[in-house]
Amino acid sequence: MIGVFDSGVGGLSVVKEIVRALPQNKIIYFGDTARLPYGTKGADFVKKYSLKITEWLLNRGAKIIVVACHTSSAQAGDFLKTEFQTIPIFDMITSCAKELSYCKNIGIIGTPGTIKSRAWEKHILSNNPEANIKTKACPLFVPLVEEGWVDNKASKEIVKEYLKDFNELEILILACTHYPVLEKTIKQIIGAEIVDPAEYLAKKLKTYLENNHDIEIKKGKPEFFFSDEPYNLKKIAKLCLNREIKPKIIDPF
Amino acid sequence: MIGVFDSGVGGLSVVKEIVRALPQNKIIYFGDTARLPYGTKGADFVKKYSLKITEWLLNRGAKIIVVACHTSSAQAGDFLKTEFQTIPIFDMITSCAKELSYCKNIGIIGTPGTIKSRAWEKHILSNNPEANIKTKACPLFVPLVEEGWVDNKASKEIVKEYLKDFNELEILILACTHYPVLEKTIKQIIGAEIVDPAEYLAKKLKTYLENNHDIEIKKGKPEFFFSDEPYNLKKIAKLCLNREIKPKIIDPF
Repeated sequence: MIGVFDSGVGGLSVVKEIVRALPQNKIIYFGDTARLPYGTKGADFVKKYSLKITEWLLNRGAKIIVVACHTSSAQAGDFLKTEFQTIPIFDMITSCAKELSYCKNIGIIGTPGTIKSRAWEKHILSNNPEANIKTKACPLFVPLVEEGWVDNKASKEIVKEYLKDFNELEILILACTHYPVLEKTIKQIIGAEIVDPAEYLAKKLKTYLENNHDIEIKKGKPEFFFSDEPYNLKKIAKLCLNREIKPKIIDPF
Repeated sequence: MIGVFDSGVGGLSVVKEIVRALPQNKIIYFGDTARLPYGTKGADFVKKYSLKITEWLLNRGAKIIVVACHTSSAQAGDFLKTEFQTIPIFDMITSCAKELSYCKNIGIIGTPGTIKSRAWEKHILSNNPEANIKTKACPLFVPLVEEGWVDNKASKEIVKEYLKDFNELEILILACTHYPVLEKTIKQIIGAEIVDPAEYLAKKLKTYLENNHDIEIKKGKPEFFFSDEPYNLKKIAKLCLNREIKPKIIDPF
């Protein structure tokens, strides 16, 4: 089983890419909707719950862990890899920071937690010290997507306000699982190539499994667990995954 | 001591009104920033943590409880009053639902949890069955205030979009602690009288204490506890309370 977790529902946009790359492999997903959002919480909090969820997924039989939450990837990715050294752990940042290091002018947008951690910059600069990186926390994007306002007047004004200083970029990295839903509106405002790290992560995971046959991943349909059933859960899930799900509500913590 | 709790920082706008009415009385505040927002969570979750926080405040010496969170008031107010029958508990809804029942055309805006509970409508209609009530969940208002976007172009478009069907109201009730910060922008868009229930709650609390001398409330400076230190805590606190605070971070749950 591939264990995937996120602070909430947005991680389903990562599941979508994994299913596209590896359609047969069983996925178990945990969304910590009881404690979302992680993006505005403190780093210790994010570490604590990333650890608990990883343990829970491993206890249920996961052989590989995907940290589908960008905030957890930024604030707890390295910590989890140290804690669980024998488990392959894939996070959103190391999934493509290397691959994108050919670019000179890079924009990164994400939650306050992700941006504040500077994890993306560190990874990119370690591969490409010449890169010119501009970052911006866009805390309104997540509630905007969760409200389903994707291309109305208000959402365009919000996107404009956040990206007003983002000129002459080659690429813009969407460092939050909700942001791909706003891709069309973002493209209307800035000219850069938009990068969704989930696509890179899914490809990397596929290559890893092709090269490591000793890791046995069960076949089967995905299972979706959430620690609470919030407002709009099924609607947001459909927006992120492109299909309906049957959520199982359980808070093991 | 007066124990006040909220899902986060917004409840400080209620503290501001209590301090104005009762400047000497010691207040102990708990903001559940580790688990915020409550407004989009399930009802069982809101009840569970409202109970835990109330117990914690009572253990620290609170003699009166103020439920400064509208979502908790709507989903857990009656439940808390049943659980703690000997403790005076003030919530946001019963603070003024009766006083406002003279109006015919009433608008109510709040979080999805508050609006979905229909608690405000029930209270108003039980006093005034003829009232014509229009409600609207505005989940983007909280992150908007927390971002400090109070009257830019984006915030005006968001307010317009939510209130586009709110015509011919006599009063509009701001049934969320964050919303008073947006009052100026809301007033530019609709003509109704704006009602902040916190002012009614503070007056009611003052009258109660004047009539119940057996309840001994210590004098002293307020203390502010939060279960996590999120993004922008001090900035939002200042926006809601109109002065700076020294937050103490503790998660007892």
